[in-house]
Amino acid sequence: MLDLDSLFNLSYGMCIVSSKSEDKVNGCIVNTVFQVTPEPPMVAISVNRGNLTWDYIKDSGVFAVSILAEEAPTLLMGKFGFRSGRDFNKFQDVQHRLGETGCPVVTDSVVGFIEAEVTDSVDVETHTIFIAKIVACQCLCDDKYPMTYNYYRDVKHGRTPKSAATYHETKE
Amino acid sequence: MLDLDSLFNLSYGMCIVSSKSEDKVNGCIVNTVFQVTPEPPMVAISVNRGNLTWDYIKDSGVFAVSILAEEAPTLLMGKFGFRSGRDFNKFQDVQHRLGETGCPVVTDSVVGFIEAEVTDSVDVETHTIFIAKIVACQCLCDDKYPMTYNYYRDVKHGRTPKSAATYHETKE
Repeated sequence: MLDLDSLFNLSYGMCIVSSKSEDKVNGCIVNTVFQVTPEPPMVAISVNRGNLTWDYIKDSGVFAVSILAEEAPTLLMGKFGFRSGRDFNKFQDVQHRLGETGCPVVTDSVVGFIEAEVTDSVDVETHTIFIAKIVACQCLCDDKYPMTYNYYRDVKHGRTPKSAATYHETKE
Repeated sequence: MLDLDSLFNLSYGMCIVSSKSEDKVNGCIVNTVFQVTPEPPMVAISVNRGNLTWDYIKDSGVFAVSILAEEAPTLLMGKFGFRSGRDFNKFQDVQHRLGETGCPVVTDSVVGFIEAEVTDSVDVETHTIFIAKIVACQCLCDDKYPMTYNYYRDVKHGRTPKSAATYHETKE
């Protein structure tokens, strides 16, 4: 039995993954970020190979993960989740700063961030899993809650783009 | 800055990953399960290389993920999270059935399950990321909520074993 709705029972957090290429920056929303090892602290993310952010991570070998708070506005989610950085600069009009890796870190509507250097990657069909060593991480707000994927879908009634790892037609 | 407490802002779900080896079965708790691609539906998990479940997944090439509900009792969490299957049969006295892959699926205190066949794996320091094609998945209970890692830590006051991807000493 393959009841794909059951996959919505997996829990995730909502993040903006960002990277750089020369003097350009870009980012996209992913819900697939997990810590792989505690020592050294390493993280894995899955990014669609069609995303401009994928090009930038491949090019620079570094990325940042801005962990979104529940209060993150729909406009921010839409800008990073449904539009392409090939058409405009997503970080214009978004509060951010460049981190230690040079990747942009969102500083508004987030609970913290991670910066990491890619050590390995695996192509999986339409996506690539990037495995990376954490080189910087910080809490940015202790009184906010991280936005889970369930919160995004159930409370904010957010949609999922076709490029996402967890997209499927049944419930969208 | 490397403030590892900030990594607790990443959201996860709590699952029992199980596998088989000949006529033996075993499982362990992981919070690192994510969908990698929607079509074909594929999933990735991270398992400590010292765990017996790791041996079984390597041996059989299949695993099941039982997605725990918030109501899962501490006794179940302790059995699968803090004890080794080398010492006793963890599935004795736990409601379960063998799935299509022959891996045991927990049928009590869960919201659903996934069964998958490993297509690739990557060693990352102490852990291995297994990438796998989903061959079966099903909701088992629509009126329960999946247990998130934050719920486990904040509401159930659960601890994290040293073998876990997200273990670190500061807050444990």
